[in-house]
Amino acid sequence: MAAWRERLAGVRGVLLDISGVLYDGGEGGGTPIAGSVEAVARLKRSGLKVRFCTNESQKSRRELVQLLRRLGFHLSEGEVTAPAPAACQLLRARGLRPHLLVHDGLRSEFHQVDTSNPNCVVIADAAEGFSFQNMNKAFQVLMELETPVLISLGKGRYYKEAAGLMLDVGAYTKALEYACGIEAEVVGKPSPEFFKSALQELGVDAHQAQ
Amino acid sequence: MAAWRERLAGVRGVLLDISGVLYDGGEGGGTPIAGSVEAVARLKRSGLKVRFCTNESQKSRRELVQLLRRLGFHLSEGEVTAPAPAACQLLRARGLRPHLLVHDGLRSEFHQVDTSNPNCVVIADAAEGFSFQNMNKAFQVLMELETPVLISLGKGRYYKEAAGLMLDVGAYTKALEYACGIEAEVVGKPSPEFFKSALQELGVDAHQAQ
Repeated sequence: MAAWRERLAGVRGVLLDISGVLYDGGEGGGTPIAGSVEAVARLKRSGLKVRFCTNESQKSRRELVQLLRRLGFHLSEGEVTAPAPAACQLLRARGLRPHLLVHDGLRSEFHQVDTSNPNCVVIADAAEGFSFQNMNKAFQVLMELETPVLISLGKGRYYKEAAGLMLDVGAYTKALEYACGIEAEVVGKPSPEFFKSALQELGVDAHQAQ
Repeated sequence: MAAWRERLAGVRGVLLDISGVLYDGGEGGGTPIAGSVEAVARLKRSGLKVRFCTNESQKSRRELVQLLRRLGFHLSEGEVTAPAPAACQLLRARGLRPHLLVHDGLRSEFHQVDTSNPNCVVIADAAEGFSFQNMNKAFQVLMELETPVLISLGKGRYYKEAAGLMLDVGAYTKALEYACGIEAEVVGKPSPEFFKSALQELGVDAHQAQ
């Protein structure tokens, strides 16, 4: 405990991952990881600022928070930093209109964004949506642009589900990068901007966070 | 003509590409490119050795030759160097049993190859076969191997069809390479071994070929 006290000296805020840290996905949405519900409650009671920082890109924040509440966690949408809302900010700031290659569960996050006459592609973990047809469509949109812009929500290689290992968004992003001869912009972990925005929302500096 | 005579001095054999050089794919199999039927006939009459060297990996050699004959070309299967037969040689030489992520039209090329209990993955232009499910299956096979071996028939970025640009095998190979943290072995153009085997079958040295 002494080592931990030392390590936590000066720490004012904590960023917590969600998938694989608070819960594991699976049947019926998933199950909490042993001790995690109580750990979150204790962190919040301790007076530390707590924020949840996830690369989840199959579900909207609303759906994710609803699932976590069902599993026993106490949190609200406003406490979650996720790639889709960060991408929406970026799109608006740069006047970008995305073609969306994303999971149906994530589309609601982009309802406020103009997707007509697209001038970029946003790719997220589309799962079954990664069909040959959908990949070609995204590729064709990119190839019709003078300067193709590809925005990738995370760069994960793969993740585990009950049915086995599944290719994550990073793999399909590499396919489009190679075919177009471009490099994607990553929104989400491990992008430093993403962590910075989470810390900003937490109201602490990087050296005060764990 | 003088420049050509000079350039062809010492040339004893010619390697010809097929798709995009002899014919363009499309409705009903495709159409010959203007002048190509007569050009092949003249080359053969000229006494030069002629061999066809393709990265076609949606069709078997038999199907490809049947299509070209229908379009008016005179050639036989034995005159065609293609990635699938080259891959079969490599698989046999190294005792590899492939999981096949290939187009249904190509499967017949692998009938003589043991595909039980796979210890490698062969990926070709699978087109519609590049589903999320099929990509995950190939990925899972690779991840279960101590040393994952991925053999890619070509590394094309994309090709054109009537319906627009289509992602080629190279893009999907990059996805698997990234997810597994490996590099694929390429069989087909631009692999030097592939050209060498075509020249060997032609019976001429590299400096004697065009």
